[in-house]
Amino acid sequence: MTRNGDVRSGIVSLITDFGLSDSYVGQIKASLLAVSRTLQVVDVTHQIPAQDVAEAAFQLATAWNAFPPGTVHLVVVDPGVGTPRRPIAFAFEGHLFVTPDNGLASFVLREQQPEQLVVLDRPAFHRPSVSKTFHGRDIFAPVAAHLASGRALAEVGTEVPPQSFVRLPLPAVERGERVVRGPVVSIDHFGNCRTLIRPEDIPWPRDQVWVRCGSAVVRRIEETYGSVPEEHTLALFGSHGGLEIAVRMGNAARAWDITPGMFVEVFPAE
Amino acid sequence: MTRNGDVRSGIVSLITDFGLSDSYVGQIKASLLAVSRTLQVVDVTHQIPAQDVAEAAFQLATAWNAFPPGTVHLVVVDPGVGTPRRPIAFAFEGHLFVTPDNGLASFVLREQQPEQLVVLDRPAFHRPSVSKTFHGRDIFAPVAAHLASGRALAEVGTEVPPQSFVRLPLPAVERGERVVRGPVVSIDHFGNCRTLIRPEDIPWPRDQVWVRCGSAVVRRIEETYGSVPEEHTLALFGSHGGLEIAVRMGNAARAWDITPGMFVEVFPAE
Amino acid sequence: MTRNGDVRSGIVSLITDFGLSDSYVGQIKASLLAVSRTLQVVDVTHQIPAQDVAEAAFQLATAWNAFPPGTVHLVVVDPGVGTPRRPIAFAFEGHLFVTPDNGLASFVLREQQPEQLVVLDRPAFHRPSVSKTFHGRDIFAPVAAHLASGRALAEVGTEVPPQSFVRLPLPAVERGERVVRGPVVSIDHFGNCRTLIRPEDIPWPRDQVWVRCGSAVVRRIEETYGSVPEEHTLALFGSHGGLEIAVRMGNAARAWDITPGMFVEVFPAE
Repeated sequence: MTRNGDVRSGIVSLITDFGLSDSYVGQIKASLLAVSRTLQVVDVTHQIPAQDVAEAAFQLATAWNAFPPGTVHLVVVDPGVGTPRRPIAFAFEGHLFVTPDNGLASFVLREQQPEQLVVLDRPAFHRPSVSKTFHGRDIFAPVAAHLASGRALAEVGTEVPPQSFVRLPLPAVERGERVVRGPVVSIDHFGNCRTLIRPEDIPWPRDQVWVRCGSAVVRRIEETYGSVPEEHTLALFGSHGGLEIAVRMGNAARAWDITPGMFVEVFPAE
Repeated sequence: MTRNGDVRSGIVSLITDFGLSDSYVGQIKASLLAVSRTLQVVDVTHQIPAQDVAEAAFQLATAWNAFPPGTVHLVVVDPGVGTPRRPIAFAFEGHLFVTPDNGLASFVLREQQPEQLVVLDRPAFHRPSVSKTFHGRDIFAPVAAHLASGRALAEVGTEVPPQSFVRLPLPAVERGERVVRGPVVSIDHFGNCRTLIRPEDIPWPRDQVWVRCGSAVVRRIEETYGSVPEEHTLALFGSHGGLEIAVRMGNAARAWDITPGMFVEVFPAE
Repeated sequence: MTRNGDVRSGIVSLITDFGLSDSYVGQIKASLLAVSRTLQVVDVTHQIPAQDVAEAAFQLATAWNAFPPGTVHLVVVDPGVGTPRRPIAFAFEGHLFVTPDNGLASFVLREQQPEQLVVLDRPAFHRPSVSKTFHGRDIFAPVAAHLASGRALAEVGTEVPPQSFVRLPLPAVERGERVVRGPVVSIDHFGNCRTLIRPEDIPWPRDQVWVRCGSAVVRRIEETYGSVPEEHTLALFGSHGGLEIAVRMGNAARAWDITPGMFVEVFPAE
C-alpha cells in the first residue's frame, strides 16, 4: 500500500531507444536502484529506432497491461531533451507512466484522458546533479523509482490538466460499408505485420472475409498460427489485440515486401 | 522448502526466440512477476533463430546446470502454438523445466528420462484469459512462476508417463576404431565451432591426436585458448563440455568457413 | 553494513564481450545467484567487440559512478583466460571492481591508484570446479557475489601493491597554446563521437571556440542537443563527461565519416 492508498507492484518496466551496446540503459538502472534497491526492473525493449516516438508508443501499448496494476512504465525516447518539452508522469487504469511529454502514451490512452497528470518539477526527486543531455538517468528514472516505491504523483510533481497532454495522431482505422482498412503500424521480429484494426471494427464473420495487404490475400481470419499449414500466409488477431498478417513458420514482411504504413484491407466475401 | 519437500531457488531462467526488439519478452516477465513479485528472472538468450528448436535445446543444455538446484528453466520456442502440441513441465536432477513438448529438452536429457512429467492442463495456474497465439505469456510463464514459488509439479498439471516425451534425434557422435566424428551443432558469438564430442568419446591421449574440420587441422587438443599464440587455430573442450574448434583472439567459423552440420573428426596421430 | 564496516549496495554491474546469442551471460548470472539469491544484477553491456579491452574500459568509465557506492562492477573481457594474467579485485572511491588484470579499469582510475588491490587466489570463493576456459563464470562471478554480499577484499584474495596494476595507455589529450586535441575513443549507438577532452582542458569560453573533427566544423560548444536545429552538427560535453561531436536527430559518425582514433580539435575563435 502507498501513502495515497493505491497499491504499487514495485515493478518498473523500461522502454528506450538506447540500444544495448552503450552503458545508457545500465546508468538508468543504476539511477533507479540508487533510489530503491529492491525494485524489479523489467526491460521491455531498448531497440526502438533512434528517436522513433511512434514505435515506442506502439510497443508500450502492446506491453503495459500484461504487468500487474501498480507498475510504473518508464519510457525514454527523448529527442527533445534540453528543450522546453515537459517531463511528466500520469496515472491510467491503475498503472503509472513516466515519460517526456512527446506523445509516447498515445496508443495506451487512445481517446481517453489520464486520470492524473503531473509535471516533474520537484528537484528533490531528481538526481542531485541533473545533466542537460540525459534526463532519462537524472529525472525520469529517479522519479519512476520514487513512484514505484510508493510516492504519490502529487508528491513528485505539480498537477496539470490532463487534456494538456501531447498526443500523436492515431493511425486511423477506416470503417466503410464494404471495407475496413488500417495501416501496418509495426513489424515484429518474426515478420508479423501488425495493425490497430480490432475485432470490433469488423462487422462480418471471420470466415466470410477477404484480407489483403499489398499482394498478399487470404480468405478468412484465423484463430492461431497453427490453423494453416507451414509456410502459408494468414491473417489473425495478434497478441497486441490488432489484426496482423503472418506467415506460419515464415516471415510475412519479407515474403510479401510489406513495410510499415502499407494498408491492410478487410472486405466481406463475395 | 516447498510443499513436497524439495528446495526451490526462486530463479527462473529464460530462453526464447522472441528477439529483443518487441515487447514479447517483457510480457513474459510481466506474467512471471504477476504471480510472484520476488522472483529472480535470468535471461539466458532471446536470440534463438525464429522457431529453431534444436538451437534452443543446445543453448539450454549449455546453461541449465550452472544454475542452483531448484531453478525453473522456462523455454519458449513454440512453432506449434495453437496446435495440439502439449504444454509440459518436468523435473530432472533437481531442476524444473517448463516448455512446449517439442524436443526442447533433448540435449539436457540425452538418453535419460525426466523424473516426473506433467501436462499443463490446470487453468487455475494460467493467466485468467489465455490467448491462442501467446502461450509463453499465458500458460508457460505463470506455471513457471508458480513452480519457482514452491508449487509441486503434481499441483500445476496432470502426471503422464515420462517416456511419452517428444525428443529430437541427437546428433550422433560416431566412435570408430581410427576416428571419432560428430557434427558442429552450434557456432557461438566468438566463432567457436561446438560439437557434442565429449572427453570420454576419445580413447587417445590429447597430445597424440589430429583434429580436423573442413580445411582446419590441428595436431592436439589443448587445455585452454591461451595455450596457443594469438590468431592460431586450436581444438579444446569448451565450457559446454564438448569439443570445439577455435581461433585464439579470432573467429574460427569465419577463418575456416565452418557452418553448423560440418563434421569435426578426431584421429589418432600416425 | 559489511564485516569491515563499509556499505555494500547488493548490486553487481556487468560488462562483457559475450554478446546475447549464447548462454554465457546467463551462466555468469547463474554463478552470481548461486552465491546470493538476492543480488541485483544490472547488465551494462554485453556488446563489447570480442576481446576489446579498451572499449570495455571506456564503457565501464561511463557507467560506474552512476551506481550507488558499494556496487560491485564485474567486467569480463578476458582474452588472456588460461594464461598467467591475474584475476583481481580492488576498491576505488567506495566501489568494488572484479576483473582480469588486463587494463579494464584504466579509464576509471586514470592517474590514480586503487585503494586496495587483491589477487583472487582463494578457491573457497570460486566455483567448486574451475574450468580453464570460463573464469568469468568460475572465478570472477562468485567472487563478485561474495563481495556484493559483504565479504571484505582481504577475505577473497591476497593483498598486493596497488601499483602492480596493469594499465592501458590513456589516449592523450594534448593541450597546446592554440589547440586542444584528443582522439575519438568510442562512438555510441546514436553515432555520437566521444572523446576524453574534459571541460577543464579547454581554457577558452565555450562560445569562442571552433571544434573540428575530419570535415565537421562547428563554432561553439553547446549545452545540449536541443540547442541547435534538427539535423545540425554540434559539439557538447556528453553524459560521459567528455567532449563529443553529435548531429541532432541524426548520426554524426555516419554523416561525417568519423571513426574511432580520429582527432577532435578545439581552437580559440579568431
